[in-house]
Amino acid sequence: MPDLRRDPIVGRWVIISTERRGRPHDFVKPQSGPPVSTALCPFCPGQERLTPKEIMAYRPQPSGPNSPNWTVRVVPNKFPALHVEGDMGREGIGLYDRMNGVGAHEVIIETPNHVEGLVDLPTKKIEDMLWAYRDRMIDLRKDLRFRYILIFKNHGASAGATLEHSHSQLIALPIVPTSVQEELDGCRNHYQQKERCIYCDILRQDLSDGDRIVAENPEFLCMTPFAPRFPFEMWILPKRHAAYFEESQKSQFEFLAPILSESLRRMDKVLSRPPYNFILHSSPLHEKTGDYYHWHLEVIPKLTQVAGFEWGTGFYINPVSPEEAATFLREAVI
Amino acid sequence: MPDLRRDPIVGRWVIISTERRGRPHDFVKPQSGPPVSTALCPFCPGQERLTPKEIMAYRPQPSGPNSPNWTVRVVPNKFPALHVEGDMGREGIGLYDRMNGVGAHEVIIETPNHVEGLVDLPTKKIEDMLWAYRDRMIDLRKDLRFRYILIFKNHGASAGATLEHSHSQLIALPIVPTSVQEELDGCRNHYQQKERCIYCDILRQDLSDGDRIVAENPEFLCMTPFAPRFPFEMWILPKRHAAYFEESQKSQFEFLAPILSESLRRMDKVLSRPPYNFILHSSPLHEKTGDYYHWHLEVIPKLTQVAGFEWGTGFYINPVSPEEAATFLREAVI
Repeated sequence: MPDLRRDPIVGRWVIISTERRGRPHDFVKPQSGPPVSTALCPFCPGQERLTPKEIMAYRPQPSGPNSPNWTVRVVPNKFPALHVEGDMGREGIGLYDRMNGVGAHEVIIETPNHVEGLVDLPTKKIEDMLWAYRDRMIDLRKDLRFRYILIFKNHGASAGATLEHSHSQLIALPIVPTSVQEELDGCRNHYQQKERCIYCDILRQDLSDGDRIVAENPEFLCMTPFAPRFPFEMWILPKRHAAYFEESQKSQFEFLAPILSESLRRMDKVLSRPPYNFILHSSPLHEKTGDYYHWHLEVIPKLTQVAGFEWGTGFYINPVSPEEAATFLREAVI
Repeated sequence: MPDLRRDPIVGRWVIISTERRGRPHDFVKPQSGPPVSTALCPFCPGQERLTPKEIMAYRPQPSGPNSPNWTVRVVPNKFPALHVEGDMGREGIGLYDRMNGVGAHEVIIETPNHVEGLVDLPTKKIEDMLWAYRDRMIDLRKDLRFRYILIFKNHGASAGATLEHSHSQLIALPIVPTSVQEELDGCRNHYQQKERCIYCDILRQDLSDGDRIVAENPEFLCMTPFAPRFPFEMWILPKRHAAYFEESQKSQFEFLAPILSESLRRMDKVLSRPPYNFILHSSPLHEKTGDYYHWHLEVIPKLTQVAGFEWGTGFYINPVSPEEAATFLREAVI
């Protein structure tokens, strides 16, 4: 059973998940290997038996679970960081706090096509992927053990993708991760002072200034943030204030899918198809954050090596200004 | 002039330092190159003219600045992230805050020997390196523009070291980095509740429990922390409560040098000489943290690829428990 442990100084929870590795010397070898060929890919149609039993799939014609002919398929992660069964087991050990690593860890397979990236998908298929995120969040929200749902995508081996076939992951956690908590605290403070959502204020200022805009449509803005941690970091924000991604309407995904696709295509053009990560930041499930929190997507191309300096300090040196990045991205011919 | 910018949501400052890079396509090529040979190494004796003019050096026999025959040499970083000249230039831009990237960026060359790592140095030479850190902090503290001094070491290309010759870096900042601020806030809260320093409480509990101890001497403990972010992460803590590293006595470095050396040698034995980072966490310069803060060193072997998950959430999945890591490290035959 994985262990959730809390650092008593900064309040950060970590997962100690020892089932997924071997002995120390295993760390000496690099952890990447050759890409898995289509014949062995557990995410490809016809190989559904290679994944744990599916949780959900979208099929144009109804067919049984774990059969092919799906457009989006959600399965449990075969090597989960957390376990769905079990109680919380919260305990204090002197100064320290721990609990059992309960949680859900799922994989959203975005397309049946082994070689298609998210960026290659027609926007209707990206809408389906987003709706699958939404369906899973609505379902997992019923389990009151879970306080937060994290949805993210790793693209490319150096961004942490261990399988080539395009997929995202979902982790449901019994605690709220640190960086989300920091955002929430900042949002709450701003609201207390101004009676306004800080992301709405950012939208207003940046839509007016214009020099950090990458792409825009009636419902969403893609921008480079004023104080980016990473070169070419992008945020995609709903223009309409909303704290909970899972409360989005299908019609809103008709605008989110194309702007996500466009942002990735601009990034690919300027940076020659880099590895990247994106993370969905949405409200904790059972907290009333509706006034002050604002869900958004963060897209981070993986370009630079992050050194101990950044890890040890939370302090980033970014060699590209967001205005310059936005100009390159906006002016790219796609 | 580099730009310091503050994210308005979480209060994090970043440096935008555009002088150190080229055009976007530069990011497409990996940034590592072959190690610099001794003939070209700017840190080697006889090549002092290849560095900016030295700030300080320890020489067994007095000789002029920028001459060879030194044991430790401190020079400005040739490609500094921040600039020493200039005023703060603080300004608000609507919702946003920025200031000029003023600060100091120095390199501490730890040994004249090109191929010696820190781990290979006799402890007397490591004491000299630590005293050089201390001397630079005492000097830079006089400049009231600076609020924090960060000292860190990157060892190995994948840990961010761009030159092979063993060296550490020092950055003096006009702001307190986020992760230090988080530690300070946590320490202050604990002190307010308990009237005790939290690191002293951790020392008491862990010296008693014993299962996370890596090495120990009369003045220092090396341990794996209860809730580590990274596999084989180690902390070196002074047993005697102290907030300001720069107030250490020479006699204390006679105990810090050997435990630092021993910790690195144990790590090297268990993990086969991995790349690593260490960061000195000391008090902000002009804040009265003496009651509640406790300086320490964090040593982080660079073993795993950090994926978007960790970046996006501040949430870490560690495949090695600290008790297991401590056992391997403690039992290594060095």
